Amino acid sequence: MSSTPSASNALVNATHDPGLKSWVESANDPATDFPIQNLALCAFHAEHNGHAHDHLGVVIGDQVLDLGTLVGAGVFADDEALAYLMHLPRWNMLASAPKYWPVVRSRIQSLLNAESHAGQQLRRVRAKALRPLSQTPLVMPMHIGDYTDFYASIHHATNVGAMFRPDNPLLPNYRHVPIGYHGRASSITTAGGGAGDTTSVRRPKGQTKADDAAAPTFGPCKMLDYEMELGAYIGAGNAMGDAIPFDQAAQHLFGVCLVNDWSARDVQKWEYQPLGPFLAKNFATTLSPMIVTMEALAPFRVPGPERGEGDPQPLEYLRGGENWGLDIKVEVWLRSEQMRERGMSPVMLSRGNFRHMYWTVAQMVVHHASNGCNMVPGDLIASGTISGPDKASRGCLLELTWDGNGPDGKPKPRVPVHLPTGETRTFLADGDEVIMKGYAEREGYRRIGLGECRGRIEPAA
Amino acid sequence: MSSTPSASNALVNATHDPGLKSWVESANDPATDFPIQNLALCAFHAEHNGHAHDHLGVVIGDQVLDLGTLVGAGVFADDEALAYLMHLPRWNMLASAPKYWPVVRSRIQSLLNAESHAGQQLRRVRAKALRPLSQTPLVMPMHIGDYTDFYASIHHATNVGAMFRPDNPLLPNYRHVPIGYHGRASSITTAGGGAGDTTSVRRPKGQTKADDAAAPTFGPCKMLDYEMELGAYIGAGNAMGDAIPFDQAAQHLFGVCLVNDWSARDVQKWEYQPLGPFLAKNFATTLSPMIVTMEALAPFRVPGPERGEGDPQPLEYLRGGENWGLDIKVEVWLRSEQMRERGMSPVMLSRGNFRHMYWTVAQMVVHHASNGCNMVPGDLIASGTISGPDKASRGCLLELTWDGNGPDGKPKPRVPVHLPTGETRTFLADGDEVIMKGYAEREGYRRIGLGECRGRIEPAA
Repeated sequence: MSSTPSASNALVNATHDPGLKSWVESANDPATDFPIQNLALCAFHAEHNGHAHDHLGVVIGDQVLDLGTLVGAGVFADDEALAYLMHLPRWNMLASAPKYWPVVRSRIQSLLNAESHAGQQLRRVRAKALRPLSQTPLVMPMHIGDYTDFYASIHHATNVGAMFRPDNPLLPNYRHVPIGYHGRASSITTAGGGAGDTTSVRRPKGQTKADDAAAPTFGPCKMLDYEMELGAYIGAGNAMGDAIPFDQAAQHLFGVCLVNDWSARDVQKWEYQPLGPFLAKNFATTLSPMIVTMEALAPFRVPGPERGEGDPQPLEYLRGGENWGLDIKVEVWLRSEQMRERGMSPVMLSRGNFRHMYWTVAQMVVHHASNGCNMVPGDLIASGTISGPDKASRGCLLELTWDGNGPDGKPKPRVPVHLPTGETRTFLADGDEVIMKGYAEREGYRRIGLGECRGRIEPAA
Repeated sequence: MSSTPSASNALVNATHDPGLKSWVESANDPATDFPIQNLALCAFHAEHNGHAHDHLGVVIGDQVLDLGTLVGAGVFADDEALAYLMHLPRWNMLASAPKYWPVVRSRIQSLLNAESHAGQQLRRVRAKALRPLSQTPLVMPMHIGDYTDFYASIHHATNVGAMFRPDNPLLPNYRHVPIGYHGRASSITTAGGGAGDTTSVRRPKGQTKADDAAAPTFGPCKMLDYEMELGAYIGAGNAMGDAIPFDQAAQHLFGVCLVNDWSARDVQKWEYQPLGPFLAKNFATTLSPMIVTMEALAPFRVPGPERGEGDPQPLEYLRGGENWGLDIKVEVWLRSEQMRERGMSPVMLSRGNFRHMYWTVAQMVVHHASNGCNMVPGDLIASGTISGPDKASRGCLLELTWDGNGPDGKPKPRVPVHLPTGETRTFLADGDEVIMKGYAEREGYRRIGLGECRGRIEPAA
């Protein structure tokens, strides 16, 4: 696998110039996720003269640029279409219109630029234009019509396969088919970064059956887990019956976010055959609130993973075009109730990189539409758990606490994670908060962060 | 299994009186699907003064009562909430408000009643109030947020299991868990009964692998199938994190329709492990355009299927309450391109009954929400293929042309279906139109029909 981004990346342009500074000082901090080169998109709940409505925003340093207010102030009065797009409550309409993506990016960047005329004008009314991120009640940035979850890490698929099917860990289709399944859109929520920055996830109940039990029982999940994933929002849609050619994938991929695909492992084990995971997954999915556009990620495009010895080449419809690997680091952090009470910081459980995925986001969307399935702007496709080749990069507790299988083919006793309080975890406990982070770094470019995705476990009903 | 509906059904009321007549004469034909006791709900595309918009309607005989126009004419002026519900473009809002279900049913029935004052008034303006069903461009009657497909026929599960897993046809979880999986909402369309009464379904392409091939290939599906299912629209929703108790299932189930879950069997076989069907199903799902309410079906509620010798009782959360079986007959008809050219009528392929399903619609919705998954008004839960104990009731070609397994455990050669043209089918050919019908009949009650669901196969792109 090549470890350097391709030197001549036609997608990298002047908007990525690391020399660009914003008049929003916090955006110039080298450690921020949200420099002027990022321009992550969000939506938030606003109240105005007693009326509640949602505004679009752009995250800049530790602030949010309030686009709804800018539209009202006439900032986009020169461009009717742009003003229309910016005053909507969600980003779906922009996602549907790829020709406006660079227009919006360069216009917003200009408004936030310390040196530009537009930026200097806006700086004068900064009190109206900006809101502190930490006090902004973020909401879902998209209306997600359909949500699909893939299974694109061969390391994750192999580890989980070894646990559930010791004789047959990686199925013969894996290296040919970007395996995916439909998830539940209604139970997707977002939290991490704005006001009230975590979401509550109630521990689900469900049917489970112990290996040695004659019959299942119904009760609270005992093996509650997270899954660290990347999500991609669909850009332009395709008509039902039409496929998406590989060389047109770019216009159908708008941006990314972090995804926590909460999973009830004991429920999953009992229910998943033959039609796949259902209640083990659909009780909650948590997204990071910002959309980091594919444009912002251009400097971090790398070749997709090379196929190893004996790996087949993807079929032709899944091949071609530009670099579709994404060099994005992802981390999972945990803070227990006891850690929170004692004022302790979260502890990191794992760190991985999205570039190790066996299938790229382009392969996922092209495969998804290859049968004529219609993608709709704002739909979400998630990657599946991001696990890498080494143990420290395993993106869920199911894998992280797994110690391989014994001579009988069955998993050996789990090795719990140790927390600084002396507590241990094999799976999540009530009160645990899971914090996911993602960011891209490359010499000569500003850090582009995805922000955080946060959720805390509440006891079962 | 008991074969008579329960004699004392508290849900049957005066609105089911078979003596009720409508001033719309075609509704009094004993063969109609849509007598005044049915009041099936629809939505249609209307143009008015050059403006296009959708109206709600009620099907009565061979006509559609145009509710949008009635609201405009002030017919519901005495009840502001009712007028609001009736002028919307979809039925989701009514679905969300169970207390209005009987209000709407009795009000509409009164408007169509030959004997009532309201009916006699409306009859005078019938030209404005009615539109011929066959000339009405029906659209989706609901906005479907999430679509879930169950697998509730034990006969279907056993037959399909025997083909795909000869050693292990019915998995151990089947008799405990109402198995289901998430489907794709974006590719759901509706056709059957209105103007332009069929929908085109493009033959999908996909990855398939022959048993003796070393690698898969990508191309048009060669084993295209239908699946005859019943769909139930969700009524009231539940908050995320809250389950639906079994004794409250009724308020969460609004009405039913016919569902054709088109299936690419060769794609399914190669892709479905370990996460279930995906591209084999999500290219198209076709619904019948009318919603037949649970209220209209009250006389046809029967006990759920009795558990056989050795069958476990459902766990407690899946038990209780009123009769949840539904005595609805379903039929699948086929007309090939050649039959159409020669003016021949469609031929019936199978006939089944929904009452044979192992799991009821109440068990499906209660199970779905048992982990706190939030149901949203208008969501669709489909039953899975309706196959009964005998061969003539198998609800898809995969089963209908299956001749059992040979001594080697593998399926014997398929037995094709013969069409009156001399053509044969093991799976669907281009130009084939599949027509599904559903209806409920019971001595002493008017026939309640679900109408038709129609779709025709177009060649692959």
